[in-house]
Amino acid sequence: MHPDRRIYLKMMAPEQARRILLERASGLPELPVEEVETAEAVGRVTGAAIYARASSPSFAAAAMDGYAVRSQLTFDASEAQPVTLEVPGQAEPINTGNPLPPDKDAVHKIEEVHQQADTIEMMAPAFPGQHVRLVGEEVTAGDLLVTAGEKLQPRHIGRLLAAQVWTVPVRCKPTVAIIPTGAECLPVGQAPGKGQFVEYNGPMIAAALSQWGCAPQLQEPVPDEETALAQAISRAAADSDIVLIIAGSSAGSRDFVPSIIAQLGELLVHGVEMMPGKPLALGWIDNTPIVGLPGYSVAAWMCLQGFARPLITRRLGLAEHERQQVRARLRRKLPSAAGIEETLRVVMCDDGQHRTVVPLARGSGSISSLAQAHGLLTIDQTREGLEAGTEVAVKLLVPRARIERSIVAIGSHDLALAALAERLAERWPPLHLVCLNTGSTEGLAAIGRGEGMAAGTHLLDPETKQYNVSYIQRWLADLPLVMINLSFREVGLLVSPGDPMGIKAPADLAREDVTFVNRQPGSGTRVLLDFLLKEHGIPPTAVAGYEREAYTHTMVAEAIRQGSADAGLGILAAARAFELDFVPITEERYDLVIPKRFLELARIEAMVETINDAAFRDAVEKLGGYSTRQTGEIVFEQ
Amino acid sequence: MHPDRRIYLKMMAPEQARRILLERASGLPELPVEEVETAEAVGRVTGAAIYARASSPSFAAAAMDGYAVRSQLTFDASEAQPVTLEVPGQAEPINTGNPLPPDKDAVHKIEEVHQQADTIEMMAPAFPGQHVRLVGEEVTAGDLLVTAGEKLQPRHIGRLLAAQVWTVPVRCKPTVAIIPTGAECLPVGQAPGKGQFVEYNGPMIAAALSQWGCAPQLQEPVPDEETALAQAISRAAADSDIVLIIAGSSAGSRDFVPSIIAQLGELLVHGVEMMPGKPLALGWIDNTPIVGLPGYSVAAWMCLQGFARPLITRRLGLAEHERQQVRARLRRKLPSAAGIEETLRVVMCDDGQHRTVVPLARGSGSISSLAQAHGLLTIDQTREGLEAGTEVAVKLLVPRARIERSIVAIGSHDLALAALAERLAERWPPLHLVCLNTGSTEGLAAIGRGEGMAAGTHLLDPETKQYNVSYIQRWLADLPLVMINLSFREVGLLVSPGDPMGIKAPADLAREDVTFVNRQPGSGTRVLLDFLLKEHGIPPTAVAGYEREAYTHTMVAEAIRQGSADAGLGILAAARAFELDFVPITEERYDLVIPKRFLELARIEAMVETINDAAFRDAVEKLGGYSTRQTGEIVFEQ
Repeated sequence: MHPDRRIYLKMMAPEQARRILLERASGLPELPVEEVETAEAVGRVTGAAIYARASSPSFAAAAMDGYAVRSQLTFDASEAQPVTLEVPGQAEPINTGNPLPPDKDAVHKIEEVHQQADTIEMMAPAFPGQHVRLVGEEVTAGDLLVTAGEKLQPRHIGRLLAAQVWTVPVRCKPTVAIIPTGAECLPVGQAPGKGQFVEYNGPMIAAALSQWGCAPQLQEPVPDEETALAQAISRAAADSDIVLIIAGSSAGSRDFVPSIIAQLGELLVHGVEMMPGKPLALGWIDNTPIVGLPGYSVAAWMCLQGFARPLITRRLGLAEHERQQVRARLRRKLPSAAGIEETLRVVMCDDGQHRTVVPLARGSGSISSLAQAHGLLTIDQTREGLEAGTEVAVKLLVPRARIERSIVAIGSHDLALAALAERLAERWPPLHLVCLNTGSTEGLAAIGRGEGMAAGTHLLDPETKQYNVSYIQRWLADLPLVMINLSFREVGLLVSPGDPMGIKAPADLAREDVTFVNRQPGSGTRVLLDFLLKEHGIPPTAVAGYEREAYTHTMVAEAIRQGSADAGLGILAAARAFELDFVPITEERYDLVIPKRFLELARIEAMVETINDAAFRDAVEKLGGYSTRQTGEIVFEQ
Repeated sequence: MHPDRRIYLKMMAPEQARRILLERASGLPELPVEEVETAEAVGRVTGAAIYARASSPSFAAAAMDGYAVRSQLTFDASEAQPVTLEVPGQAEPINTGNPLPPDKDAVHKIEEVHQQADTIEMMAPAFPGQHVRLVGEEVTAGDLLVTAGEKLQPRHIGRLLAAQVWTVPVRCKPTVAIIPTGAECLPVGQAPGKGQFVEYNGPMIAAALSQWGCAPQLQEPVPDEETALAQAISRAAADSDIVLIIAGSSAGSRDFVPSIIAQLGELLVHGVEMMPGKPLALGWIDNTPIVGLPGYSVAAWMCLQGFARPLITRRLGLAEHERQQVRARLRRKLPSAAGIEETLRVVMCDDGQHRTVVPLARGSGSISSLAQAHGLLTIDQTREGLEAGTEVAVKLLVPRARIERSIVAIGSHDLALAALAERLAERWPPLHLVCLNTGSTEGLAAIGRGEGMAAGTHLLDPETKQYNVSYIQRWLADLPLVMINLSFREVGLLVSPGDPMGIKAPADLAREDVTFVNRQPGSGTRVLLDFLLKEHGIPPTAVAGYEREAYTHTMVAEAIRQGSADAGLGILAAARAFELDFVPITEERYDLVIPKRFLELARIEAMVETINDAAFRDAVEKLGGYSTRQTGEIVFEQ
């Protein structure tokens, strides 16, 4: 062990940690109350019960257009023997909302009288109070309008103003200090150099806190240096209602947050049995709760939602936020460590009959998986994962209807899919093409399991030199499907600009001075590489970097641009986008496999229609290295 | 008919009117796009697809604390034959997030090496890329981050900033002019005199528009005078993206909005077959959609939700907002006119086993029913109401969990219930006591139907001179229940301050110069009045105003304070609250009836506990005319 390495206090179940935090918070004095203009108070939380100051209407008023009458005079009216009333005098024309004259007690609807020059004829009696709005019918002085702890909605604003409550007592917004830590963190707006990161957790957390009714105070990143950090935390604890610290709460040699909390106050929790989110620290300095969030973005977000948010709602006197849940079925086995509560970001593939849950990348830092997710799937501590076929509850991050407007495309990475997604979103209502880059092989497997509606694939059969068909016949023989061509793409070696290493052909990959970056097994590009190596008689062990795997063409291109590899196999469009040189090798066919049962869904029809659209093809051709000569054609069907 | 009375163009089904509006809107040019700071863009709607500008991490980084190594040197390591590496040189200590030294390609976890002074021993090989975060693992340059039409959430903000997208193109907030109309409308802050109203629809609508991402422009009320109104509408149409006009769109003699729209542009819809909301006008002036909303608050809100909101989401490129729905069972017959789509505001009584829907007041102006509602129940045009026992879908206005934290109390109006509600809301998580003032008789009936968990009742049996028990034995004989005393209340005649009419006893109600305001049939106070009249030998027809019905003690008090009645029967606390004089008549017992099956619900336990709390009793005693000598005692059980 490093000499200064720290350890977790005692790992705790997340539920227990949350209980400790909230119980402690219940002992805090309530947030102060301020008086604000009612019309500006939407979204604020009432700090006291509010009663009506006045009644609305404040006078008896006509509820219909018609004539105000004294009901006694009309009691004998009938179709056979109408009653005639003088206008004005015995009857007065009146419009909705006008005050009832003092000597009248009913309104007769205009449609139900015969109007003559100076009289009206009534064919039916009016009862006392007929079509008259009583004083206080909408709201009566003294009515309880809202209790404390109500998050004011526009309809409450309406009622409060109707009751002449011009200002309302609301809880002051809790001030929440956010302290990002780490010498390598740069504030937003500065491009990071090597070894540096954009500190984007802070702005993300600040945005969430604003939505929850807090006043976030995002501070400049503090280097992970003990004295500076202690000063920043101590000052924030004195000045704020809640302090959130980002990173530095794990058990590494530079994770000072837990010990600083313990020195300045009390460390209640260090380490929770959840993933992402394990390195959480909870503490108390004087009367201020301190939440030490993990540094990885998804872990930070999970702990923000799981601990900071309940703390905030508790301080505001609100009930805890509960996400809407939907049921969905898992179609693959999902292993997970026992003893730890794991939460996965998932999307759902929903055709109206079946709703299938598809897990996204599991990494604690995979902000993309969080941004793309439809919802969260939690595997509780007692389970070692979930079996395929299990029905699970998913907590939603998006409106439920969005799932039914989503097309999950799972399989090979391709830049043309982004162009397709872009166009589908511009329809109304927008359609969402969710692309999971798993590679061609895994995409076909996922389609077989019902996890996707479309799979992008470009698998070369080394025997037949044909694309995709033989794989489908082998793996998806029983599934009625169509295969639509999306494009032909130029594939080759991506190399640094100017090709300083002089890489001209696959044979150069065997050179000792050339470092390669590979794609993951099962991807079409990996299949092609293995075919090429075999064809050139190069054993994989002769390729330096064969084991280094990237998941997309652009990740390969980026590794080369950054200089951490000299060459990679990929598409021309990626080389173009990253301004790399390109050694052409072949042209491959990229198809979309769509099970026939989805073809009648409106969103799939819209997708096929968009693929056949000239504007889409133009956009794809512009990416470089694409040919759309067969785009939209059904190239195989079974 | 009034000579200048107008008619509806042609009543239209709401769905058709909405379609006409949205189809027309789809021809409008898109809202302009502006560039805003990403960190400030939460809640804004993207105006274009956004791609990653840079990768994160932008360099290969350690994913664990440990040692960076060149994997090749470790391939032969095993427990039996560990490999020793020099530190520094062959192995370098590295912390999570640090860049990998250029000559290293893997990280070995600190827990899995033996550390010595200048060396480490490895017992297992490291594979290339082990515990190394690839360049672009979180997000890769060129990735599609969001499409157009995405309402940005904090997690999107995080991903955008990770990709070094410092500003984002978002749709400009649509400017929405709100023009309240009517000479009798006063802006917020001014107390209305007779014939005047607080114009509270405008601020309510403005608050909603802000929540929906618009820039509302609330104007001063415009008198319902044709020229002034036409000018205001014409100016607003030129200056705003959408114009909402409040009131003046019905068919009365001063409803100028439809004809003004037709003169200045095109009137598309006038009158929809929905309730509340019939007097809707939709039109177009140049390129600006015009929505003429009804003047009654609930009708205005319904049309805002049903027409203006879809128009706004359409303009922003968002999908239509869909409310979460729950199923609930109706326990009473609910008549409704065929040919009109009626929407009721409802609360739900949910004990975890059964969810019962309880309709609130149906009036178009009942802002209180809207503010109190849990949700909306729509009876479609094809039905003449709903039968008791029907399962219905309710669209939620509150988080679903709130229903499970609500206690529906249905029955007699009492000021002590507000004090109870106030205290229950101060617990955490807050409990919501929803009080429906239906009167004692209807409250008992509702309890029998399962529509409430508690019924306040003070029904005098003229035979036995006892309260409540005989009624329960007659109507709820089969229902196991407890009856808990809430208070004893002083009841008497409420009269104007100083008692100018000299009302001293019930006998005075028979005087010709005295105007009475009554309570609704079935209320305990009405039962008492009828008993008193009988006792004094006064026939109801001898009481002027016997037919005029108010629904609460405070409405009675307000009618007297406003001078529209001389006397009413009610509780001392209402006289106190409205500074009226009071002629004492009797003391009555007010009990809460609670079916036994609810007694074990935590919220009912909390309510009973609160009733037994000294602070609650003090608050009730302070209202005036209350005795809490038996408060909290079970006075009857079956």
